[in-house]
Amino acid sequence: MLLLVLDLIGVAVFAASGALAAVHARLDVFGVVVLAGITALGGGIVRDLLLGLTPPSSLRQWPYLIVPAVVALLVFRWHPTVARLRRAVQLADALGLALFVTTGTATALRVGAPAATAGLVGVITGVGGGVVRDVLLTEIPTVLRREIYALAAALGAAVVVTGDALGLPATPVALGAAALVATVRLLALWRHWNAPVAGPSPG
Amino acid sequence: MLLLVLDLIGVAVFAASGALAAVHARLDVFGVVVLAGITALGGGIVRDLLLGLTPPSSLRQWPYLIVPAVVALLVFRWHPTVARLRRAVQLADALGLALFVTTGTATALRVGAPAATAGLVGVITGVGGGVVRDVLLTEIPTVLRREIYALAAALGAAVVVTGDALGLPATPVALGAAALVATVRLLALWRHWNAPVAGPSPG
Amino acid sequence: MLLLVLDLIGVAVFAASGALAAVHARLDVFGVVVLAGITALGGGIVRDLLLGLTPPSSLRQWPYLIVPAVVALLVFRWHPTVARLRRAVQLADALGLALFVTTGTATALRVGAPAATAGLVGVITGVGGGVVRDVLLTEIPTVLRREIYALAAALGAAVVVTGDALGLPATPVALGAAALVATVRLLALWRHWNAPVAGPSPG
Repeated sequence: MLLLVLDLIGVAVFAASGALAAVHARLDVFGVVVLAGITALGGGIVRDLLLGLTPPSSLRQWPYLIVPAVVALLVFRWHPTVARLRRAVQLADALGLALFVTTGTATALRVGAPAATAGLVGVITGVGGGVVRDVLLTEIPTVLRREIYALAAALGAAVVVTGDALGLPATPVALGAAALVATVRLLALWRHWNAPVAGPSPG
Repeated sequence: MLLLVLDLIGVAVFAASGALAAVHARLDVFGVVVLAGITALGGGIVRDLLLGLTPPSSLRQWPYLIVPAVVALLVFRWHPTVARLRRAVQLADALGLALFVTTGTATALRVGAPAATAGLVGVITGVGGGVVRDVLLTEIPTVLRREIYALAAALGAAVVVTGDALGLPATPVALGAAALVATVRLLALWRHWNAPVAGPSPG
Repeated sequence: MLLLVLDLIGVAVFAASGALAAVHARLDVFGVVVLAGITALGGGIVRDLLLGLTPPSSLRQWPYLIVPAVVALLVFRWHPTVARLRRAVQLADALGLALFVTTGTATALRVGAPAATAGLVGVITGVGGGVVRDVLLTEIPTVLRREIYALAAALGAAVVVTGDALGLPATPVALGAAALVATVRLLALWRHWNAPVAGPSPG
């Protein structure tokens, strides 16, 4: 139940990030709804395909369809000024990453995946929606660009896997992992933490 | 049997759309064949993966391989002048969308998917090939851009699902749904129907 | 066992191609590791999804995770000068293509896929990682561009399938097929073999 609620909140914030990015790219209202839906559901669909759960749960349950559509229409109607959209996309994206890494890892553990597999599936679930969103808008995905992103996802997945291995209660672990991912990601954004870039010639 | 025939016609027209787009992008003959194949088979492969049907049917049946290759070579040799290619891509794409939405929805219903799942799988099947084609050519996919596209697909899927729920005969429903999708999409193209774009600042 | 070793060498060289391309695109160290991992594992994950083998083997076995990460860090630290990166990417990509076409085809045959399906799965496995790498960097994938690429992959898959049908011993066939793919691909690169491009107007 907690998994479902966290997953739907993740769907909602990723839908918002997709819708905001679509408005920023000047897509029409259908494009905004479609990109919001793909961004919101993409990570979970990839997760279910990797775990052999077909058809993916998000294509079988109504809330997974209604939430992104409603969020997309709300964003389309009441989005902030275009000048502020980039920051709003980043904020929604960070929250979606946090929730999807957590629920993706937990879902994989629940169906019996070993720890390493579960962590990887969690990371892929978390970054998947944003990658698809950026690729469809012909941008290099955030996960590959300058800010700490994959690292935040990996930390969150590691916390969920470790908590499970230690037999800790799932709910506080999931909430703690999500909070950790969001905090690391947002600090990296706001403090302009960057990882090193390779120099132009060999060391 | 009707499903197979409609599916293969869809494969052929999507192959043509991929081949025309590849010629337009100045790809060589192998690139034209590969892009035609990916465009033609991409939607169906995604459909089968979502439904847990592996290996995908298009990788198991010869016609699915021969049809795109032959269409690609025909297009490569006798394509119209480059100036007219964009319109030819759009026409082939609209027909492929119509056929794949219909066959995708019907296939999902046949393997027991509930109505909403079947409709979504149909829409994904219909738009999938074109999305992959555009992404590979580093263009923002048609489904996200200005013309009515996702709406046409959703209408067609709704007709197939409703016809199935009412117990109507499958063949006329499938043909009617395909005709509806193609008509809406082509009217949107030719009449320049556009959906609204979000304004630059909040309402 | 041979399959596993060849597969891991393929993972390593594709990881190198992804890491070199990421350095060339000026990604940070995490971006380099992530792109190396996606490039190295993408083809195999798609192969396993197409064959219904879930979770994909590369998400279940430690070497598949450690190898790309180590290769990426080595490349990040000791990559050649940026001016020579494009050529190094091409070389690593050709070797990865050769190994993955071979192991992809052999894996599909081992789980009982018919010959045509196995060959196609092999080609998709071989080109998959490079396609994802290029799409994420918003470039038109190599497989669609000017040099002989899909042809080399198809030749290698045909050799493996034919050897299997004739009952030849698998190891020399696999090594021969990989050598053939790499040779054709590298000759095409170094001799500037190109396939014809469609003319600007109908013949």
